[in-house]
Amino acid sequence: MHRPAGTSCSATVGLLADAQAGNVRALARILTLVENRDPLGLTVLDRLYPLSGRAHRIGITGPPGAGKSSLLHRLAGSFLSTGRKVAVVAVDPSSRSSGGATLGDRIRLTEHHADPNLFVRSMASRGQRGGLGAATVDVVHVLDAVGYDSIFIETMGVGQDEIDVHRVVDTTILVQVPGLGDAVQTLKAGIMEIGDVIAVNKCDLAGTATLVRDLRAMLAVGTSSADEWENIVVPVSAGTGEGITELAKSIANHATYLRQGDRLIVRRRDAALAEVEMLVRADLERRASQSRDPNVTALLDEIVHRRQTPRAAAELLRIQAEPLASGQ
Amino acid sequence: MHRPAGTSCSATVGLLADAQAGNVRALARILTLVENRDPLGLTVLDRLYPLSGRAHRIGITGPPGAGKSSLLHRLAGSFLSTGRKVAVVAVDPSSRSSGGATLGDRIRLTEHHADPNLFVRSMASRGQRGGLGAATVDVVHVLDAVGYDSIFIETMGVGQDEIDVHRVVDTTILVQVPGLGDAVQTLKAGIMEIGDVIAVNKCDLAGTATLVRDLRAMLAVGTSSADEWENIVVPVSAGTGEGITELAKSIANHATYLRQGDRLIVRRRDAALAEVEMLVRADLERRASQSRDPNVTALLDEIVHRRQTPRAAAELLRIQAEPLASGQ
Repeated sequence: MHRPAGTSCSATVGLLADAQAGNVRALARILTLVENRDPLGLTVLDRLYPLSGRAHRIGITGPPGAGKSSLLHRLAGSFLSTGRKVAVVAVDPSSRSSGGATLGDRIRLTEHHADPNLFVRSMASRGQRGGLGAATVDVVHVLDAVGYDSIFIETMGVGQDEIDVHRVVDTTILVQVPGLGDAVQTLKAGIMEIGDVIAVNKCDLAGTATLVRDLRAMLAVGTSSADEWENIVVPVSAGTGEGITELAKSIANHATYLRQGDRLIVRRRDAALAEVEMLVRADLERRASQSRDPNVTALLDEIVHRRQTPRAAAELLRIQAEPLASGQ
Repeated sequence: MHRPAGTSCSATVGLLADAQAGNVRALARILTLVENRDPLGLTVLDRLYPLSGRAHRIGITGPPGAGKSSLLHRLAGSFLSTGRKVAVVAVDPSSRSSGGATLGDRIRLTEHHADPNLFVRSMASRGQRGGLGAATVDVVHVLDAVGYDSIFIETMGVGQDEIDVHRVVDTTILVQVPGLGDAVQTLKAGIMEIGDVIAVNKCDLAGTATLVRDLRAMLAVGTSSADEWENIVVPVSAGTGEGITELAKSIANHATYLRQGDRLIVRRRDAALAEVEMLVRADLERRASQSRDPNVTALLDEIVHRRQTPRAAAELLRIQAEPLASGQ
């Protein structure tokens, strides 16, 4: 797409002003431009990024069928009732064979549909490898910058998503349900450790008490210092609303915990690293594809033909961190 | 660990010669050194890497409870009966709370235990983020170099593993079972696309015919050119052995398919890229942790404090691919 520089600039200023004034159409347009990596979108992002960082970013993950969407619907209602502005980013895996209703669509069909303090955005997971893409996090930065207080990121909970999402948010809610699988398997897979708050959904089902007890016992084993956040297991029912208030309170407690000392800075330093890793990886893949960077493709061929070890090749790809100019 | 250079060198030569002569103790020792990133292990790896690339690398993945271990046991038996040397690398997620039997342990307790043509190795997934580490792939390189014909990598099938494993192998077997979850969910999650061969295990269970039919219908939607590999759905029973021969044949067919034209080269170029990505990411994380590289940590703080966008920061981390010296 070619645009005269002047038009692009005034368009940017107009969109920005409108979005910041609460115009959701302008906001949606910005998010589309950001999601599509349109140069205009990236310009807006550069302008908005310094205004971000105030929102509480909450990831919600768990196996398919755990009822994440319904739970999120309830949670959004609870957060809205306290006067917060709430945004939901639902990440739907892009698949060559996909189609049909997305999670975001489902949320849109709810009672909060018309609430001006709720904004719902459904996005495809861009990364060919599954997982969150840098674009997803950029969308969160924009929502943060225009004033949403609580931003939920919901993932399908299959593949790379579960691991990725917890790196880029402040608080992760892991949703489990009785009877869906072996809790010990989940534990062994290391997935447990990413949940700051564990919601046992469908708590009217048989097996809830056992699952809650097992999860608490497992978490007790892992607890170390008194200073550390103690992972909380909350039985909830998205159907009846049972436990939602307690779940919302636990999420708020985690936000309070992070605000003490430099915990939030430490958390967000890792989020920044995760973002940089995504971008560096995307850059490498871009350069490797279609021989865009002959040095990179030549290096890969050296590895394939066993003339160079992967380790030696990676060393040839030197990442050089430039010293920052002072006063930046 | 400090070792005089001379000792290290002669130890390397001795271990190498022993492992190549079929001494499994020497092989196990090398793998431990490689897994622990011991300098001696990395030296051995550098020596062995040029000899690798002959083996057929097969990933086996699927949800917990799908019966991957039992299926692998059957498959190993089938491959051994054709005179192939078979190695199994079972990746167990490392978790702060883990313990108990690993997948590898379970395989070790089987009838093939004493078969000199079978080698089983259990490893922890090193990556803090879950997923395969570069060490796992290095272990495969060693097994390949010392003469194993078929190397299976089994993962827990939770989190990042499912996505990662298919990038570093030649052929991926995705194991599904009736009744474990919604096939449409799996499909939408994009996981289907990673399976070159899909094994529907426990095919004596109710729901098998429906699942097989649904999977085939879904795959038919995705099929494009005649030249492309047609993903195969094979009903099997690890319990009774039903379908194992067909599954083994499908795996061998995929190897044959890859050997035509430059398909294997293309596949392994992506595997090389995946390896390089792992190593680059590990390097970044090492430099970011404990302020080992002040430029990297300063950059992360710039992002956290919103003085720099992640995109601008990633651009400052310039990956420079050096032009290769000609004749290399």
